[in-house]
Amino acid sequence: MSIYLHDIPLPEAKARFQSALEKANLWCVLSIENIPLDENAIGRVLAEPVWAKISSPHYHASAMDGFAVRAEDTVGAQPSNSVNLQIGHQAHYIDTGDALPEGFNAVIPIENVEPLDELGEITPTIRRPASIRIRATVTPWSHVRPLGEDIVQTQLVLPAGQVLRPVDLGAMAASGHHSVMVACKPSVAILPTGTELVPIGTDPKAGETLEYNSLVLAAQIKAWGGRPTRFSITPDNLETICTRVEEAAREHDLILLNAGSSAGAEDFSAQVVEKLGTLLVHGVAVRPGHPVILGMIRRSGSHVALSGVGDLPDEVPIIGVPGYPVSAALTGEIFVEPLIAKWTGRSPQELPVEQAFLTRKITSPGGDDDYIRVAVGNVGDRLLAAPLARGAGVISSLVRADGLVLLPSGVQGVEAGDVVDVHLYRSRAELDRTIFCIGSHDMTLDLLAQFLAQLGRRLVSANVGSQGGLIALKRGEAHLAGSHLLDPETGEYNLSSIRQYLSGVKVKVFGFVGRDQGLMVRPGNPKSVKSLADLSRPEIRFVNRQRGAGTRVLLDYQLYKMGIPVEVIQGYDQEEYTHLGVAAAVASGRADCGLGIPAAAQSLELDFIPLFQETYQLVIPNIFSESELLVPLFEVLNNRVFQVAVANMPGYDVSQMGKLMAEV
Amino acid sequence: MSIYLHDIPLPEAKARFQSALEKANLWCVLSIENIPLDENAIGRVLAEPVWAKISSPHYHASAMDGFAVRAEDTVGAQPSNSVNLQIGHQAHYIDTGDALPEGFNAVIPIENVEPLDELGEITPTIRRPASIRIRATVTPWSHVRPLGEDIVQTQLVLPAGQVLRPVDLGAMAASGHHSVMVACKPSVAILPTGTELVPIGTDPKAGETLEYNSLVLAAQIKAWGGRPTRFSITPDNLETICTRVEEAAREHDLILLNAGSSAGAEDFSAQVVEKLGTLLVHGVAVRPGHPVILGMIRRSGSHVALSGVGDLPDEVPIIGVPGYPVSAALTGEIFVEPLIAKWTGRSPQELPVEQAFLTRKITSPGGDDDYIRVAVGNVGDRLLAAPLARGAGVISSLVRADGLVLLPSGVQGVEAGDVVDVHLYRSRAELDRTIFCIGSHDMTLDLLAQFLAQLGRRLVSANVGSQGGLIALKRGEAHLAGSHLLDPETGEYNLSSIRQYLSGVKVKVFGFVGRDQGLMVRPGNPKSVKSLADLSRPEIRFVNRQRGAGTRVLLDYQLYKMGIPVEVIQGYDQEEYTHLGVAAAVASGRADCGLGIPAAAQSLELDFIPLFQETYQLVIPNIFSESELLVPLFEVLNNRVFQVAVANMPGYDVSQMGKLMAEV
Repeated sequence: MSIYLHDIPLPEAKARFQSALEKANLWCVLSIENIPLDENAIGRVLAEPVWAKISSPHYHASAMDGFAVRAEDTVGAQPSNSVNLQIGHQAHYIDTGDALPEGFNAVIPIENVEPLDELGEITPTIRRPASIRIRATVTPWSHVRPLGEDIVQTQLVLPAGQVLRPVDLGAMAASGHHSVMVACKPSVAILPTGTELVPIGTDPKAGETLEYNSLVLAAQIKAWGGRPTRFSITPDNLETICTRVEEAAREHDLILLNAGSSAGAEDFSAQVVEKLGTLLVHGVAVRPGHPVILGMIRRSGSHVALSGVGDLPDEVPIIGVPGYPVSAALTGEIFVEPLIAKWTGRSPQELPVEQAFLTRKITSPGGDDDYIRVAVGNVGDRLLAAPLARGAGVISSLVRADGLVLLPSGVQGVEAGDVVDVHLYRSRAELDRTIFCIGSHDMTLDLLAQFLAQLGRRLVSANVGSQGGLIALKRGEAHLAGSHLLDPETGEYNLSSIRQYLSGVKVKVFGFVGRDQGLMVRPGNPKSVKSLADLSRPEIRFVNRQRGAGTRVLLDYQLYKMGIPVEVIQGYDQEEYTHLGVAAAVASGRADCGLGIPAAAQSLELDFIPLFQETYQLVIPNIFSESELLVPLFEVLNNRVFQVAVANMPGYDVSQMGKLMAEV
Repeated sequence: MSIYLHDIPLPEAKARFQSALEKANLWCVLSIENIPLDENAIGRVLAEPVWAKISSPHYHASAMDGFAVRAEDTVGAQPSNSVNLQIGHQAHYIDTGDALPEGFNAVIPIENVEPLDELGEITPTIRRPASIRIRATVTPWSHVRPLGEDIVQTQLVLPAGQVLRPVDLGAMAASGHHSVMVACKPSVAILPTGTELVPIGTDPKAGETLEYNSLVLAAQIKAWGGRPTRFSITPDNLETICTRVEEAAREHDLILLNAGSSAGAEDFSAQVVEKLGTLLVHGVAVRPGHPVILGMIRRSGSHVALSGVGDLPDEVPIIGVPGYPVSAALTGEIFVEPLIAKWTGRSPQELPVEQAFLTRKITSPGGDDDYIRVAVGNVGDRLLAAPLARGAGVISSLVRADGLVLLPSGVQGVEAGDVVDVHLYRSRAELDRTIFCIGSHDMTLDLLAQFLAQLGRRLVSANVGSQGGLIALKRGEAHLAGSHLLDPETGEYNLSSIRQYLSGVKVKVFGFVGRDQGLMVRPGNPKSVKSLADLSRPEIRFVNRQRGAGTRVLLDYQLYKMGIPVEVIQGYDQEEYTHLGVAAAVASGRADCGLGIPAAAQSLELDFIPLFQETYQLVIPNIFSESELLVPLFEVLNNRVFQVAVANMPGYDVSQMGKLMAEV
């Protein structure tokens, strides 16, 4: 059976889905329930407006500790003309919150009266005065919280659809409620399918995939106010999947069928939906995530809904969620969140939007709505958006993403420097304490990020190579750059490159680490690589760093000195952006060797052949080097605990760390 | 025993508390625990950095359904020169996610090959081709997700202190984790004390106060990542409170002792803290909320901490929380939230800050940090902050608050029109769909708010009277104003006032409701009030509306016509801002009668003596009347369901609702 996958525009897909839901009477709050007014009510959505059952205060309450009086009895009192009021008749002692006695209409604070004994003498320490003397006339209702000052019985306290916050609970309690009608949490079944899937906690073999999409989807649903149920993994078998979907349909409000939504030989989701109900959409023009399926399943039997009481509707919506993790998470945001919002009666989630300058050109196929993950930082009062890896398989790009840029269908790309709308995952405050570090990759940057996090700074580092880092500084796109560019003529690091790339920008250069560079090879060095000269051997497959990386510059310089033409090196064109990337290529057998640092080799248990020593420095424009933002950076660089932690990694020298090496 | 309450500045109070916590070794993450990696981990705070245990992908994975090949076998293939690859030797069928066979280094997508049968004929439908024909050379590693493309083993996946989001769970799972070390949730005991307190759910008598501060505090603590325990109400008795505090101290990380924190006769909190430990601070210069107590209690016995494993520290911090609900909630925000942040290792919560124009002058005693609750809306591209009721007892002001303006100690006030920093409780998106309605109070505005909420609009209404509303429109401080100002000379409503107050502003006037005005009296009309003439009777206590209210204008006009001087009316100076406020004053016996609308009388079961009929209209500047923001308003005004709901309230006529009555 061949399934036709045809991408339709997102608004059309949503409209088809909504129309089917409306027809099934499922485009509304699904069911409601009465819950006690306790702290577990926060985050729940009010199903009905809340009107005040009682006023608050519900009586005329004293606002002070003092004496309840009748204002008319105090007329004439003034500093030069005191008036005495007899306790029990004209004045009653009253605590804050006490009810005013019948007929009384004002309170005099205790500090404004003189207590008198039975003989009319002033006795400041007396416990039970017989009368009090006052020297000021009181206006009616002074120091009284009149009935209804806060809330008047019958007034609207909260509208339906309100997502309950702590103070809302207080206001409902104050107005006489002790339980509340809220929308039930929609129950969502998540069915991971795939013969290649293994549960997390197992040690996966090659070809096996850890199943964690159901975890991400379940966490999303919980965060959005639904109740997720994760089913165990179902292998790719049409009959088995059908059986489990029918099972899920009996007791859930929504089914997420994860993977198998594309059009491959083992993609059964569309067939399942066609067999059990109606396939509404197969393919939506969004990237990542286009092989989405939307449909409605017939529900067999009649059971009590988990999310409420009474008969369940005859149909259950089903979403076929693509298998790549980024696609799966975005499908959740685009299709599942608005549905849970509708079903609970709250407004759909809206990410705050800010304008930012794009740091790199991005292109898009043009026919799709393209969701670009970006890192966001505030550099010199400009908000910058740096596009992250775009592969649908790269979940770390979602973890790193501070926001999304949406390129609508029809837009084929955006140039570097253009202003784009960013839908922010993080608060502006978090972005404002983000340090943008760009340039060369070094393993110690992770450690630096960890130490900075403890001082309230977020380090976002982009690996674009040393040259790329300096160019980014020149463009005002980062707070600092890590760089290790050797000038062969002087033997100095970075200075000539800074003069070349950063003309007109005053910078300070700080020592960071000295480090070894050398060749990473598989354990035991099976191909007996000894030096760069071996790279020209035809059976040696090399893996390179990208153009502009300091390590690449070093390699090219050394090859030039040794007279080895790059053309003879197999794999010279295979580029990786990090030392760990190179190590991974060697460890996995994709290459036999690569140039890099010993920490990366050690991480993946490779052998390391040290060849060179080099200097890795931090280049910081003067406008940032003394900013509040970077204070914690210098604290960390001069922190002995950090220095020791770096020195304990293989091949690092920290003797220059944090020292001002040059001003350019 | 006399307790001295002396307000100290907030930073000093915080410093004393922190220093005591540091001395007790409690200014750090309290305890950590290992939890399974499931959806319940969201919101928890990472106690340690997470490093990748395995790479993702952990093998070279096909990115497409197709054929695994060796790139070198494809050299020379081009449109005019096909190359055949034999299945089983040079090519293997491979699904997306499958591992590349040993020695293979590229994948050709299935749509780019021609399947051949055993005779070498192209057979498009063949299920198991004997070989495939290709017409393009393949570069190594194309359509392959190489090992570590997403995450390389040993790299930092997430830093300590990260508050876990759904995608974070995915990234940890992808990198080989199935459990995670997080900070334990700090356990917080909340002890409500007060002889006057009764639990919610009871019908409170005069002098009894519903105890809901513990509910608000518990909900705050839950939202901030702690585990609250609400104790039952303890009466005001020093010994009993001491016993319960000691009990709470045995098994909790923090104690909140609610109320009794001031210096009255029944305020025992300071004595309790002095008796059981050290009183650090009694009184903080913040408003509302200044009678805050900070201290440390000795912990007796040695028990297993609820929040972790092992012996508990010798001391427990205690916070004496003031009794007024606004003070209590702010004390939570100011003192409890940062402590829970510290104890769980996350950053303290930061509200987003935006600049807004203040709509009214505010004054401050000057010696305190003053927290002003404000409603916030976006009117004509200016963000406006309208100060709300400032009483510490008015919890509805916290419910209505969209943000806080902080007047630091030393600042004695801010003028209307000044720009202030607002710490926002609501997202900018919510504020941008907020309709600011100002002017006269009418009971149907609550109903309108409820209908608008269903169409995605938030109606914020401020009751400043009809004249105040028109003046606010002139100043550009609202989107619309409700007004019922009779011009005695023409018998017309609003038009002459609009010309007077809104010169230069083009507005449209829309019909809203016709309504009765009359006197509200207690049931049975015990004082036999019949008309406004009765107000001059000496035994009649009147309650008035505030200056500028349409109802006040009506009253003054009618009194003038009747020749009744306002001086003879008892209570003429007692002002309420709403019809319900007047009704509450009458119902509670504060006054014998007041002028207002029948809906308010009915709400509080008062009798109503109809006297006049009037026209209440909506005045909308042209720049807003056609804005996207107000589209739902006109939908509601023309919605038959809304009109019927209003007509069903007593004394309303909806025949003009939504009609354009005039353009000025």
